[in-house]
Amino acid sequence: MPEAASRPTLEAVAARAGVSRATVSRVVNGEAGVREALAAKVRRAVQELGYVPNRAARSLVTRRHDAVAVVIAEPETRVFGDPFFALQLRGISKELTARDVQLVLLLMEGRDDHERVGRYLAGGHVDGALVFSLHLDDPLPGIIHGAGVPTVFGGRPGWAGGADSVRYVDCDNRGGAHQAVRHLVGLGRRRLAHITGPLDQTSAVDRLDGYRDLVPDAGPELVAEGDFTLAGGERAMRLLLDRRPDVDAVFAANDVSASGALRVLREAGRRVPQDVAVVGFDDMLPVAEQAEPSLTTVRQEIEGMGRLMAAMLLRGHGRVQDAAAGAGEAGPDRVVLPTALVRRESA
Amino acid sequence: MPEAASRPTLEAVAARAGVSRATVSRVVNGEAGVREALAAKVRRAVQELGYVPNRAARSLVTRRHDAVAVVIAEPETRVFGDPFFALQLRGISKELTARDVQLVLLLMEGRDDHERVGRYLAGGHVDGALVFSLHLDDPLPGIIHGAGVPTVFGGRPGWAGGADSVRYVDCDNRGGAHQAVRHLVGLGRRRLAHITGPLDQTSAVDRLDGYRDLVPDAGPELVAEGDFTLAGGERAMRLLLDRRPDVDAVFAANDVSASGALRVLREAGRRVPQDVAVVGFDDMLPVAEQAEPSLTTVRQEIEGMGRLMAAMLLRGHGRVQDAAAGAGEAGPDRVVLPTALVRRESA
Repeated sequence: MPEAASRPTLEAVAARAGVSRATVSRVVNGEAGVREALAAKVRRAVQELGYVPNRAARSLVTRRHDAVAVVIAEPETRVFGDPFFALQLRGISKELTARDVQLVLLLMEGRDDHERVGRYLAGGHVDGALVFSLHLDDPLPGIIHGAGVPTVFGGRPGWAGGADSVRYVDCDNRGGAHQAVRHLVGLGRRRLAHITGPLDQTSAVDRLDGYRDLVPDAGPELVAEGDFTLAGGERAMRLLLDRRPDVDAVFAANDVSASGALRVLREAGRRVPQDVAVVGFDDMLPVAEQAEPSLTTVRQEIEGMGRLMAAMLLRGHGRVQDAAAGAGEAGPDRVVLPTALVRRESA
Repeated sequence: MPEAASRPTLEAVAARAGVSRATVSRVVNGEAGVREALAAKVRRAVQELGYVPNRAARSLVTRRHDAVAVVIAEPETRVFGDPFFALQLRGISKELTARDVQLVLLLMEGRDDHERVGRYLAGGHVDGALVFSLHLDDPLPGIIHGAGVPTVFGGRPGWAGGADSVRYVDCDNRGGAHQAVRHLVGLGRRRLAHITGPLDQTSAVDRLDGYRDLVPDAGPELVAEGDFTLAGGERAMRLLLDRRPDVDAVFAANDVSASGALRVLREAGRRVPQDVAVVGFDDMLPVAEQAEPSLTTVRQEIEGMGRLMAAMLLRGHGRVQDAAAGAGEAGPDRVVLPTALVRRESA
């Protein structure tokens, strides 16, 4: 018997499980909408028969690669040094694995490598791209647009018209900053400083705007530029103490730079929260929990954002009749997730 | 004028730099063997003329993708949680970037995803694969062999005949263990314990063998199985203290598990090194330096191993006439790097 004939078919799986071909197809392609009891029957039949979906053949018909690229516009050292990216990748990885789609992380050393990333994206190796940590003058959006692959951005794009023309997932950075500042004001603090993120990223600009909304008369000496790193948070806090020794509250644009601020305050002999109250942003564990004192912060769903980006990109990806289905499924092209204040010891 | 005619050619670059076409080609393809002064001239001419090598066209001729996959046989959470992988990836990334080859990191959640990784490798998306952290019963080597892409392994393969049939880079795990044990014996220690790595990996087995070579009469109660994690090191150290409260030295199979052992010893009120001397393996910064007390350890060149793996895989990759060149350049197919003892405070 030729080998091809001995391979179990979709029909055989359907017969064994006592369900329709369509149901088997949905389960095998990781689509939603099948009751768990039925799905379990299908998985058992797949296992018993040793059924393997012929993806190579399907790829020829649908031109699908069952792979999604993740591009982080930061050097490789930053990607592995900042737990923020690990969390976001965890969300993406979970979502893609559930759909049996390969996560392809494209690493780079610097901006000189953007063109090469673009060539890989354009080369027909992936079905789409998830792009995050863009900086305002990054050439990447143009390169990715040129590559012609479906894309979802993490964080609102900063270039003119970008926010209206592309798909993205973000958190409510400005509203989150309001939550932080309101909390500090509610504690009776009067001299509120802000340590910013890198101001070529929209998330940092939005958090600064949120701070300014509620502290419109804060002098420029109360705002110090950071860069989302520990060292940047330390530098900014030293500057603030130097300029305004009477500062009694700090809102830092992320937890990592807030940790740097805590370290400098401790060295300077300031008690937190008694002398200076500190609020971060992210609620990144274990950073926020292991800080001394533990960090009051604005929570955003980092892993959830990753999952959502992947789901948005793959909307309709499980369907073999993608092309025939026309415009694809309904669903928003921009999602802004709410934030929440998490109280711990530092404020 | 048609656009194609206006693009600067390799010849134009050669004329401007005053060098041969072959020299320009070597510099542009990132090959070695060109004097730095000449290479600088070529780079200047490339920049002044705005020369762009036509890689897409070349790819059609050579069937090259200018991309290399990295496969780490661990769940994504482990890859981002253990700085060992970040270091190895840093070495790989530097080497690939210098040759303008894209690093494609294929992430997975578990063993169920190995087949999907194999499909991606077989799908014509990369020129080769670098594979590390294999476990003895991993199906990956077979899957990768089936995918038919050139491969270099990180760490000696453990399956029968594997070490003679594949290319790999490793460090001298057994010799490194000898260095650790000799140092502890030289300090006058008599009851030497060992915290192993996961014994389904050759690196862990080799380090255990090295320990046994020099402490042949150590009872089984002096060996506790760990898994290269902090929690595993803690568990193993508790077990050792429980079984042999008189233990006066510990050789841990890596720095991370040594850090776990230090933590448990501190909680148990044992002074390090006075009561118990501790030696790790890796010399991973900042783990070894920031341990309390700082860690005496066996240094292996983790980043260098990554670079070497990439260089071995791409040997001859820069040459357009690969196929014509026959068997490729000379060079060893297996490299075992030496280790060195680094003394700090813990032993």
